Amino acid sequence: MSIRVLHVGLGPIGAAVARQVAARPGLRIVGAVDIDPAKVGRDAGEVLDLGRRLRVTDSGDLDAEIRRSAPDVAVVCTSSTLGGVVPQFEAILRRRVPIVTTTEEAAYPASYNTRLSRRIDAAARKAGVAVLGTGVNPGFTMDALPIALTAVCERVERIEVRRVQDARIRRLPFQLKIGAGLTRDEFRRKVADRTVRHVGFSESIQMIADAMGWSLGRIVEQVKPKVAQRAVTGGLVPVASGRVSGLIQRAVGYVDGAERVTLTLEAYLGAPESYDSVLIEGSPRIYSKIEGGVHGDIATASMTVNSIPAVVEADAGFRTMRDMRLPSFFSGT
Amino acid sequence: MSIRVLHVGLGPIGAAVARQVAARPGLRIVGAVDIDPAKVGRDAGEVLDLGRRLRVTDSGDLDAEIRRSAPDVAVVCTSSTLGGVVPQFEAILRRRVPIVTTTEEAAYPASYNTRLSRRIDAAARKAGVAVLGTGVNPGFTMDALPIALTAVCERVERIEVRRVQDARIRRLPFQLKIGAGLTRDEFRRKVADRTVRHVGFSESIQMIADAMGWSLGRIVEQVKPKVAQRAVTGGLVPVASGRVSGLIQRAVGYVDGAERVTLTLEAYLGAPESYDSVLIEGSPRIYSKIEGGVHGDIATASMTVNSIPAVVEADAGFRTMRDMRLPSFFSGT
Repeated sequence: MSIRVLHVGLGPIGAAVARQVAARPGLRIVGAVDIDPAKVGRDAGEVLDLGRRLRVTDSGDLDAEIRRSAPDVAVVCTSSTLGGVVPQFEAILRRRVPIVTTTEEAAYPASYNTRLSRRIDAAARKAGVAVLGTGVNPGFTMDALPIALTAVCERVERIEVRRVQDARIRRLPFQLKIGAGLTRDEFRRKVADRTVRHVGFSESIQMIADAMGWSLGRIVEQVKPKVAQRAVTGGLVPVASGRVSGLIQRAVGYVDGAERVTLTLEAYLGAPESYDSVLIEGSPRIYSKIEGGVHGDIATASMTVNSIPAVVEADAGFRTMRDMRLPSFFSGT
Repeated sequence: MSIRVLHVGLGPIGAAVARQVAARPGLRIVGAVDIDPAKVGRDAGEVLDLGRRLRVTDSGDLDAEIRRSAPDVAVVCTSSTLGGVVPQFEAILRRRVPIVTTTEEAAYPASYNTRLSRRIDAAARKAGVAVLGTGVNPGFTMDALPIALTAVCERVERIEVRRVQDARIRRLPFQLKIGAGLTRDEFRRKVADRTVRHVGFSESIQMIADAMGWSLGRIVEQVKPKVAQRAVTGGLVPVASGRVSGLIQRAVGYVDGAERVTLTLEAYLGAPESYDSVLIEGSPRIYSKIEGGVHGDIATASMTVNSIPAVVEADAGFRTMRDMRLPSFFSGT
């Protein structure tokens, strides 16, 4: 018996998730909803460029689709903010359907969106189903993975995670999100209005601190431009010399005034080496590095798809990667 | 409220676990049992060289100690084989106490010790408590960690894990276990009578295969000597030129005749670089490396101690690292 999946949101990430679901045995797309007029009324197989029809038409009406498709789980990829997804979550939970979402703020919501988080948790418990926010970051490389690595430690002093990505291999919206091609002034304005930034550092830092039993004080976060010393070619956005090629975002979590968790993301066109590293200062000291890094778009979709069977079986409530069973690829067989 | 811990077995690993428990807030040693006449009747703090008394005397009588100490959890570090620990497990489960064990064959028991595994699972369910086999290997570096890394993949073709250790930093029993100092003939005989070998590869391979949904065929395992080209100094065992400095053990799991899981352990005195690497051939391809490797003795004790709170809360039955919540350091606060 396949797990019946309803897709809510077919933007770049939602579509990547749906394509993986379509390709995996053990999972089946039974519904797809996106409010984009260019998608409403079309077969999902066509929207996803699968080269075959799925006999699932995007009606644009979430409530009708839940009733019609009777899904075992809903995948929500519509917004980075918890506020943006609450109405969808509530509609889905009213029908007692568990949720996996790539909403960054849902990855570890209790500390930063306390009121909304409690409301979703209560609705999920009432429905008797689980809600999980996941993805590669937040969700894995900068939180679940470093936490899992601390399991071999008898003492942990400090955790430093660094993610360096040559953004040339990423999709256009990502390249734009990191500010590629902007002048320094444009970049500064977009940082100020929060359109250029990675969402999820606070969530990841809080997840790590809670796992370590650290009472977190302030988190200091900073977004700086990476300025190209010479023109960068090969990206989807032209970057002239002196223009911004991407961002360097750093967040530090303090405990009693001391720097205990440091997350650094360097995402820019032309980074000489991509990697994901975790340093755990403690006993034993652990330095782990994924050479070439983890491809963000594939990985976020994979984390979402691979979480589906665990979420279907999980205890009711707003769960996090910390209390889910060991993450794993799900073959569907 | 501290978690009350009973220690069963105070050999090198059991003592390392107990020392960590003694040092962590949130955990408390309430009992200790070892049948070694040199330990019976002595205070556990003295046996563990803590420099302070724990007011816990090793009576050598497991059943009496469980009754007297009323533990929340028992840590069993007495044997590598499931057969060797069953009587202890049954005595502990009769008192409805959950168990964490470093018994290698308990790390993923269902496939290789089906009958014993079912018996322990039934006893644990009847007692309403969980039993978990863990440690660094099996338990983490060659199974749980590679499995967790596959969570970012949409496709997994093959997994290769390599653990290279300069055994000079390990304790004497480990250096002897890998055959350091032997002649090639002596090594061959000890491999034949199974006194020189690492236990747990089959368990790790099966755990990975099950997580990937692969129907595992045969497992081929091989232990070869690493022969010193020149004398190796710095170990606890003298290794002359031409003598064995340690072992190279390799296990391959086949699926439909194809090599899908390969585990290689190179543990010898004088290895030029220690590391733990995981290669996942798939999409995306993942190559992760822990530079310097994970120190086996500390890590096995840490994995055990860090698993305690999760095991106390876990669903009843014979659990594995696959179905436990995300591994993590446990600060006890």
